[in-house]
Amino acid sequence: MPSDLLPLAAATRPLYAGVDLGGTNIKTALVDDAGRVVAFRSEPTLATRGPEDAAARMGRGVIALAADVGLGPGDVARVGLGSPGPLDIPAGTIVRAGNLPDWDGFPLRDRVSAHCGRPVTFANDANAAGYGEFWVGSARGLGSLVMLTLGTGVGGGIIISDVNVEGEHSHGSECGHILVDPGPEARACPCGQPGHLEAYCSATSLVAIARERLAAGAAGPLAAAVADGEELTTLLLGRMAAAGDATARDVILEAARWLGIGIVTFMHTIDPAAVVIGGAMTFGGEADPVGRLFIERVRAEVRARAFPLLAERTPIRYAMLGGDAGSIGAAGLARLDHRRG
Amino acid sequence: MPSDLLPLAAATRPLYAGVDLGGTNIKTALVDDAGRVVAFRSEPTLATRGPEDAAARMGRGVIALAADVGLGPGDVARVGLGSPGPLDIPAGTIVRAGNLPDWDGFPLRDRVSAHCGRPVTFANDANAAGYGEFWVGSARGLGSLVMLTLGTGVGGGIIISDVNVEGEHSHGSECGHILVDPGPEARACPCGQPGHLEAYCSATSLVAIARERLAAGAAGPLAAAVADGEELTTLLLGRMAAAGDATARDVILEAARWLGIGIVTFMHTIDPAAVVIGGAMTFGGEADPVGRLFIERVRAEVRARAFPLLAERTPIRYAMLGGDAGSIGAAGLARLDHRRG
Repeated sequence: MPSDLLPLAAATRPLYAGVDLGGTNIKTALVDDAGRVVAFRSEPTLATRGPEDAAARMGRGVIALAADVGLGPGDVARVGLGSPGPLDIPAGTIVRAGNLPDWDGFPLRDRVSAHCGRPVTFANDANAAGYGEFWVGSARGLGSLVMLTLGTGVGGGIIISDVNVEGEHSHGSECGHILVDPGPEARACPCGQPGHLEAYCSATSLVAIARERLAAGAAGPLAAAVADGEELTTLLLGRMAAAGDATARDVILEAARWLGIGIVTFMHTIDPAAVVIGGAMTFGGEADPVGRLFIERVRAEVRARAFPLLAERTPIRYAMLGGDAGSIGAAGLARLDHRRG
Repeated sequence: MPSDLLPLAAATRPLYAGVDLGGTNIKTALVDDAGRVVAFRSEPTLATRGPEDAAARMGRGVIALAADVGLGPGDVARVGLGSPGPLDIPAGTIVRAGNLPDWDGFPLRDRVSAHCGRPVTFANDANAAGYGEFWVGSARGLGSLVMLTLGTGVGGGIIISDVNVEGEHSHGSECGHILVDPGPEARACPCGQPGHLEAYCSATSLVAIARERLAAGAAGPLAAAVADGEELTTLLLGRMAAAGDATARDVILEAARWLGIGIVTFMHTIDPAAVVIGGAMTFGGEADPVGRLFIERVRAEVRARAFPLLAERTPIRYAMLGGDAGSIGAAGLARLDHRRG
């Protein structure tokens, strides 16, 4: 939730709503033309109730949010909806929603639009988060960005001068699925293919790699904590790395190395104005010793491998909008469509 | 040189000129608004005479080409200039021109513009070729493309809905420099870094790899030909592969495998409507048995490694404009700028 809400009287019209549909929560932001949040709400997704139920709550949520600040639906120029993929963006549907088959192919965009009576721009959630950081976050004022979102998986957003690279088949900016290890020993990505970036630097991968190290006999505070029944998570890895555990530190640094390898490929193809790292797995960010260790290792790998001019001129930063990037960015993508007519 | 020139009377105005500055030749095309070539000329680059001499010949060449069909300079709406990189596109300069230091930092764009009296759009030569194939070549009518140009190096062009991905620091679309092999045994790329795509599938790399195989004792028709004094080139490799030489075939198939690995990364980030393979090293194209062998191996690697939907829906094709892609594409980029005002 944004810490500061802009008073409506100070907002620049038109206003846009951004909806970030997550596995756990639906976050909705009412955002002004300069990307400032006027109103915000979050509610449980309750995905098992089915997509029509969620679409109704998302659409009505937009109306309720406008009403919270004394506005009608007509005051919202357009709605942006960010959704986990894979999507069919032109169709406005989720292609395959994990273990929730009633969501597959459901006309999500159009049903949300029907429930709020406003036009809806549909986007991949990681692209929306990338647009949020581009518009008013870590890359604000710059001409382009590549954002990598480290969480259960590795999401991506590529924005080039207000073009959101969503791809011809709705699979653009799948930055977690670039091939970084083509060898026969490559780790398997959850998507089924070996050697993708996600297999080396998602939270899931880090936990799996740490578990392998422990199973192979790594000793120390991390091993002791896990033996004591603590759940092996990236939070625990961060805490143990801070406490000097060599295994935790190694696993985190190795993930950073792979992330740097992936970023070199983005620098040499997109050549963005900035690379932004966000998501749940950022170890407390630059202010935290482990967060700093992580991003410095990423930067060192990039310096060692990228064209020197790019390594020198392209900042690699943590995201700054946190969990609000998706809803703010979705509103920003709605704004782009609104401006294009 | 284009096989058919459009009669001027049939041309759609405005007209644009595209200049493709190469190490050997300067090619200039006068192109109509639909991408059809009205007039064409080619002359030696003579780079050692210095950049001002070349700029004068390029600028005056545009005027002369217009005069060839009875037009004045004012009939050319804008000029596009494609140049080998690395460039500083905003400055209109070549940053580093190999062993020709008097070209470094020379204001090439502005001097060409001064010599022809027309505004000039400046672009990387491989991006220009990519735009040519996007506009009127192998990807004509599609919404986006990634083009890989296999020659001395591996050039790239990424075009997304009329956006030429030239990058924030003029290093966008350097598709030959994605990291495909992060391991300690990776081959060195001519740029100095290990493991780049170019180190595995440029003509230079193919010849180097074949030479290593022969040095390691590979026997057969290729070895015999080279022992007889034939120069080891990709043309020879193609001829020997056609004749059944196992080493030549292996080397070509291995390059195709790496190219496929690289293309998967482009599919998962750009998700283009088509991938186009061009340049000097295309083994005669789809009509030639070796050209077919090569591209079928690329497609097989992509099928094995890309998201199935993308592997199924994204055509991988040879380029069709040959050596004219650069000049036609440069004219197309000039047209984009002209239309944007």
